Amino acid sequence: MPNWLKKRAYLTPERPAIIFKGESISFAKLYHNAYKIAGKLTAIGIRNKQFTAVLLKNHVDSVVILLALQLIGVRAVILNNRLTADEIIWQINDSKAAFFLSEELFHDKLENISRSLPALSVFTKEDLIQSSFEEPQIIEEIDLDEICTIMYTSGTTGYPKGVIQTYGNHWWSATGSALNLGLHENDCWLCTVPLFHISGYSILMKSIIYGMKIVLYERFDVNETISDIRDEQVTIMSVVSTTLTMILDQLENERLPKRFRCMLLGGGPASLALLERCIEKEIPVFQTYGMTETSSQIVTLSPEDSFRKLGSAGKPLFPSQIKIIQDGKEAAANEPGEIVVKGPNVTTGYLNRESATKSLHEGWLHTGDIGYLDEDGFLFVLDRRSDLIISGGENIYPAEIEGVLTSHPAIKDAGVIGKQDDKWGEIPVAFLVRKASVVVSDITSYCEERLAKYKIPKEIYFVDDIPRNASKKILRRELRKLLNE
Amino acid sequence: MPNWLKKRAYLTPERPAIIFKGESISFAKLYHNAYKIAGKLTAIGIRNKQFTAVLLKNHVDSVVILLALQLIGVRAVILNNRLTADEIIWQINDSKAAFFLSEELFHDKLENISRSLPALSVFTKEDLIQSSFEEPQIIEEIDLDEICTIMYTSGTTGYPKGVIQTYGNHWWSATGSALNLGLHENDCWLCTVPLFHISGYSILMKSIIYGMKIVLYERFDVNETISDIRDEQVTIMSVVSTTLTMILDQLENERLPKRFRCMLLGGGPASLALLERCIEKEIPVFQTYGMTETSSQIVTLSPEDSFRKLGSAGKPLFPSQIKIIQDGKEAAANEPGEIVVKGPNVTTGYLNRESATKSLHEGWLHTGDIGYLDEDGFLFVLDRRSDLIISGGENIYPAEIEGVLTSHPAIKDAGVIGKQDDKWGEIPVAFLVRKASVVVSDITSYCEERLAKYKIPKEIYFVDDIPRNASKKILRRELRKLLNE
Repeated sequence: MPNWLKKRAYLTPERPAIIFKGESISFAKLYHNAYKIAGKLTAIGIRNKQFTAVLLKNHVDSVVILLALQLIGVRAVILNNRLTADEIIWQINDSKAAFFLSEELFHDKLENISRSLPALSVFTKEDLIQSSFEEPQIIEEIDLDEICTIMYTSGTTGYPKGVIQTYGNHWWSATGSALNLGLHENDCWLCTVPLFHISGYSILMKSIIYGMKIVLYERFDVNETISDIRDEQVTIMSVVSTTLTMILDQLENERLPKRFRCMLLGGGPASLALLERCIEKEIPVFQTYGMTETSSQIVTLSPEDSFRKLGSAGKPLFPSQIKIIQDGKEAAANEPGEIVVKGPNVTTGYLNRESATKSLHEGWLHTGDIGYLDEDGFLFVLDRRSDLIISGGENIYPAEIEGVLTSHPAIKDAGVIGKQDDKWGEIPVAFLVRKASVVVSDITSYCEERLAKYKIPKEIYFVDDIPRNASKKILRRELRKLLNE
Repeated sequence: MPNWLKKRAYLTPERPAIIFKGESISFAKLYHNAYKIAGKLTAIGIRNKQFTAVLLKNHVDSVVILLALQLIGVRAVILNNRLTADEIIWQINDSKAAFFLSEELFHDKLENISRSLPALSVFTKEDLIQSSFEEPQIIEEIDLDEICTIMYTSGTTGYPKGVIQTYGNHWWSATGSALNLGLHENDCWLCTVPLFHISGYSILMKSIIYGMKIVLYERFDVNETISDIRDEQVTIMSVVSTTLTMILDQLENERLPKRFRCMLLGGGPASLALLERCIEKEIPVFQTYGMTETSSQIVTLSPEDSFRKLGSAGKPLFPSQIKIIQDGKEAAANEPGEIVVKGPNVTTGYLNRESATKSLHEGWLHTGDIGYLDEDGFLFVLDRRSDLIISGGENIYPAEIEGVLTSHPAIKDAGVIGKQDDKWGEIPVAFLVRKASVVVSDITSYCEERLAKYKIPKEIYFVDDIPRNASKKILRRELRKLLNE
């Protein structure tokens, strides 16, 4: 297949690609700018197939850098902006990235990282702009099996794993979505979610593949969202329950324009109350289920089914498949079990993790999430992976937080669970067993150095012991009981 | 990827798939019926990966049979209905098909074919309906590299070659088209072109992959077309110049509804006069360039460019590429040369034709057609393959007709060219050198037994010799001069 960005700039050069802070950039200009940056990346020595870590905020410059990396076939290890320096260092080491692209904004973290990793070549976007230019070797034909991006997610083991997303994964995600949502000439996707998440990055890929305008935000803003849906003629938007609730609250008695055709709601199960509010306001909600490993949505519910199947995540996209496995075999209709998915949008594996990759039996990904298919084949997600906490659309893996907590000299054991929260959906709370005297504020500041803010336990309870089963696995349901008491 | 028809029936069971003679059939029903026929095909002994020749007119039953063959992974050799028994026998022998599916309508041809090929298993659809049922082995996952269909086209060598179309070719054709034309929930494609052509078969594939309603005709009818565009809410239609002209004539001062969004015009270059009439009537014409080897369109012009680039065939679909080759190297902008194309929708080769398949250098198909790319990269087709005659959308290969003519005992040499025709675009005319006394009517009836009607020369001229170059290739431009005199 021809190079996507180059092909797009050739097909529809004058069409607007991105609106950022009111400024519009065409596909021709986007290609031109990415080409320039590709030349600068070449000049500083970054080459095809190398792993390069990227820490960038949502910004049109970041889009240009991400696309420049694609132009010369560099594999981008995309880092969550909220990670601490320690977490970033861990992911850079794990991915064996030799280069690190970031920006002055993250100055403090960068200093810290550079001190710890003296061999790492660190460049800010401000450095890049100053850099010289060397004619880049553009990848003229894209190999769909080639690695495009790496995004880290955690497992039950505590340490995050790098999810491999190939060009094919992104391609099939974009086309699978178009076959479901349709594709209109006037489509415009509002991206208020982070580009470092697959939710945001996949919108960028859709822009290039569809030739579609996107409106990009640095961060979600409810007032801007509502005015841009009107003024920029937005037709599609990706939201999580938290942001959708804010939009509904802000709208009060107003309605969104008829042109707005899809509110794609992901990031964990939504409450029926929220869905009912959307129906009342005639907001076309498409509930969806997906994860980093499926390169965004893999199961989506259409509004035509949203009344009849309220609360369902829908059916798998055309190129994808789903099964429910219970006791090692396929479950009957309405019988809950583990959600298992397959498709050309599903990751080919985890970076440098042979055994985790092997768990993809014949391409089937065992998600760890629990759900069932009803008699018509609609998926109902009962519970994200039993231990997973989803807070404002961010995934939080208790094992990772527990690992940090137990590394504190005064902590003997730790258990973390999610607590219901009106604003964030869930927040992490910790149960701790002390081996020495320590106060909550000490633990919180210890965490602040080591964990992204959203992962830090918002409530801490000291207990005598953490309930565990025979194989020493934490009994989280027992912790939940404790919390309710 | 999951089985397409089964997946579609699961995703949108109640959505209408096909309207045929006013009757609507849903995707669930279409799958159900195809499943039943797949069971009957299994009962008569047709198996996965076998080649089965198919001679069927446009009809909902034919759709069911074609889809039943896909369900059990049978490779369909799809025959042009207009072929004579002799031409069919040749293609069956060439493809080594062991089974032949047809219908009573073609009774005379079937008798003739059965006599000549006693080992061939011939079944009519009427036989099939009577047949018993044996649980079919449905292909649960489609391998995109597997052969789906074979359609014959001729080359300069005279004998037709079987073009291999894989499931992947059809998939990429459908998604490449959607990325260009868009995909609306209310789309409905009017199919008045034959299912045995890639133009018709590709509409059927789009119906399944998009979940889109199609209106299927036995044959083109201008009155029905105009009323169905209104009443069945057709949004897209595939036409050739001949049928588009008839629609324009019939419309007189009326307009098509605003909902109608795409008149996909293929089958050879269109006259500027025709395009200007469409502009005047606000008919959204998308000129397109494609062939059996590209599984339908590969280059398409959007209406947004149709004024500015009147007469251009547009730019290659997103997954495809194009080059103009002159003297073995890529031509500059506006310099004419051979049109060379590549993409996942391009055939992987010709059935049982190793040397012809080898001509696909690294996937690049040398079309033999002449054209140029302008400075913005828009394709202008100057001439279809120098010898190709296109008559009412059907490709006619002079070498094939010349082969039949020279097999007549009284004919020493023959040359065939196209003549401009107001209704058909072109008609074939022949120049003959006699070696014995013969009259035109003898030759015409000789051809009628051996050639489909549209291939029979409509005018015959006797000459003393056929102008040929040193390597004995016919100088068709000399014949054209003769014709003008």
